Amino acid sequence: MKHISYIGDFAAWEKEFVFYMPTKVRFSEMDMFGHLNNKVPFTYFEEARIEFFKKLGFMQEWTKKNVEAMIVVANLQCDYLRQVFFDEHLKVYVKVESVGNSSADMHYMVKNEKEEICLVGRSTMVQVSKKTGKGVPWPEEWKEKMMNRQLI
Amino acid sequence: MKHISYIGDFAAWEKEFVFYMPTKVRFSEMDMFGHLNNKVPFTYFEEARIEFFKKLGFMQEWTKKNVEAMIVVANLQCDYLRQVFFDEHLKVYVKVESVGNSSADMHYMVKNEKEEICLVGRSTMVQVSKKTGKGVPWPEEWKEKMMNRQLI
Amino acid sequence: MKHISYIGDFAAWEKEFVFYMPTKVRFSEMDMFGHLNNKVPFTYFEEARIEFFKKLGFMQEWTKKNVEAMIVVANLQCDYLRQVFFDEHLKVYVKVESVGNSSADMHYMVKNEKEEICLVGRSTMVQVSKKTGKGVPWPEEWKEKMMNRQLI
Amino acid sequence: MKHISYIGDFAAWEKEFVFYMPTKVRFSEMDMFGHLNNKVPFTYFEEARIEFFKKLGFMQEWTKKNVEAMIVVANLQCDYLRQVFFDEHLKVYVKVESVGNSSADMHYMVKNEKEEICLVGRSTMVQVSKKTGKGVPWPEEWKEKMMNRQLI
Repeated sequence: MKHISYIGDFAAWEKEFVFYMPTKVRFSEMDMFGHLNNKVPFTYFEEARIEFFKKLGFMQEWTKKNVEAMIVVANLQCDYLRQVFFDEHLKVYVKVESVGNSSADMHYMVKNEKEEICLVGRSTMVQVSKKTGKGVPWPEEWKEKMMNRQLI
Repeated sequence: MKHISYIGDFAAWEKEFVFYMPTKVRFSEMDMFGHLNNKVPFTYFEEARIEFFKKLGFMQEWTKKNVEAMIVVANLQCDYLRQVFFDEHLKVYVKVESVGNSSADMHYMVKNEKEEICLVGRSTMVQVSKKTGKGVPWPEEWKEKMMNRQLI
Repeated sequence: MKHISYIGDFAAWEKEFVFYMPTKVRFSEMDMFGHLNNKVPFTYFEEARIEFFKKLGFMQEWTKKNVEAMIVVANLQCDYLRQVFFDEHLKVYVKVESVGNSSADMHYMVKNEKEEICLVGRSTMVQVSKKTGKGVPWPEEWKEKMMNRQLI
Repeated sequence: MKHISYIGDFAAWEKEFVFYMPTKVRFSEMDMFGHLNNKVPFTYFEEARIEFFKKLGFMQEWTKKNVEAMIVVANLQCDYLRQVFFDEHLKVYVKVESVGNSSADMHYMVKNEKEEICLVGRSTMVQVSKKTGKGVPWPEEWKEKMMNRQLI
C-alpha cells in the first residue's frame, strides 16, 4: 500500500471500519477511457455518509424544520489506488476518524468484490447553524456515538 | 431529415428559432463509447430554457419568495440525429412552439460548428402554484412574449 | 391517469411489465427545489435497460471485441406523473413494446413504495454496426426473446 | 484565509496562477439545500486542467492513437471556503505547483465575480503508459513548459 498522508497504521485503520453501503458501478459513471469518472467516488462517499448518519439518528434531526443545525462539507479528498470497472459491486465503508468541537474527520474506503481496496478518502464535516452558518457544537452523546465502533 | 413526430415543415420549424445558448461539450459528458451520454442533451435544454426565461423576465418572477407561481417539467423528449463529439462548440436553440392556459410546448434544436443539426427535442412546461401544485394561468402579456419571435 | 401518446390501454400496458430494477433516490439526484432533477429518470431507464439486456444475454454479445453490432439510443422521452422524493425506493420497469428490423421500441414505468406510478417513458433503440453506424438486423431468435414476456 | 495544508504563503501562491477557464454555475449543479453539490468543483477542475493541457499542447499528444502515454488522476482534493450560488460567473484557475519524474502536483483556485476565493484544491496527475499503466517520464521540455508561469 502506498503512503497516504491521512492514514497511519494501515492495518489498524482498515480494521476500524464497521459500516458500509453496497453499490454497483453504473454505466453513466464511466468516462471515455473506460475509467470511473474521477468525481464519482465523491458521490459514493456522500451516499455512504448519509446512510451512516441515518444509522446514528443524526440525519433525522438535521432534516427537521425546527432544528437549527445542519451538516456541511469543509473539504473532501480521494486517492485512486486501483481501477474500478463498469458493473462491479463495491462496498463503500465510512467511519468517523476523530471529532472536534463542531467538526468531524470522516474517512472512506472502497473495496471491490475481491476485497481489494480501490479508493480511500476523507472529508471534514462541520455541524453549522442554518441561520448564521457558524459552527454548532456536537452534543456529548453524539461525539460518543460517532467514535463508537459498534454503531449502537 | 428523418421524420420527427413533433416537427411538421422542417424548414419553417428551424427558421422560427431566434434564441440560443452557446455551450461546449465537457469531458465528463462523454460515455465509455466516446458518445455524448444520452442524458446530457436534457441538461443543455434545461440551461438554454433558463436563459430564455431570464431573457423574457419570467425567471426573475418565479424565484421571488412572495410569488406563488413556479415552473415544472411535465414531459421531456430528445431525438439524437448526429453524433456529438468531445470539445465541440454547440448552439442550443430554444423556442416556445405553442402556449396553453398554464402550459407551454417548448422546442429545442442543437447545432454543431458546421451548422449541422445534431439534436432536436421538446418539453411540456407547466406554470404551477408552489403551494398547491395546481396550474397557474399565464398572464396574457406573457403568452404574447413567449410567442413573439423577436424576443422583445 | 392522464393521456400519454405512446400508451393505449393503460391497464394492459402496465400488466406487460415483468422485469424491473430496484433503485433508491440519491441525494445528488435532487435539485434546488427538492425535486428529482429532470434528467435522472433517463439514468434510471439506462440502468434498467442494461440489466434487461444482460438478462437476455444481448449485452454480453455487444461488449465482445470481435462482435460488430452495438446498441444506440435514437430517441428518449419521459413523462413526469408524480413527484419523487429523496431516499425513496423505486422499481424501474422496462419492456420491449415492439421490434422492427434492427430497432426496438422500449417502454419504462417507475413505481414508488406505495406502488404508485411516478414516471413513464419510452426510447427507440437501434442495433448498429460499430464500423459503419448502419442498422444491423436482429436475429429472429432475439426478436422472440425481446417480445417474450416470460423472460426465458 | 484559513490554513490549507498544501498552501504555504497564500499571497505568493495566489499570484502564480496565470491561466483560468471561465464558467457559469448551472442549475443542475445545485443540491436540495441550494448549495453547489460538493462534487461539482472536481468537474470544474477537470475542465480547466484539460484546457490548460491543450494550451501547452500536451492533450493533443495524449489523444493520438499511436502515442503510448496518457494522463491519469492519482488523487484529488478540494477545500470549500465560500458558498457558490446558482448562475454565478466563476474563474477556475489552474497551475502546476511542482513536477516529479512522471507526475505533477496541480493546484486550483476558483474566484467569483467579486474576486473572492470560493474554492481551492489540488491533484496529483501521473503520465502513464496506456499499455502497462506504469509511469512514463516527462520530456525535459514538458517539465519546463509546465513550470513556466508565462504559458509560452
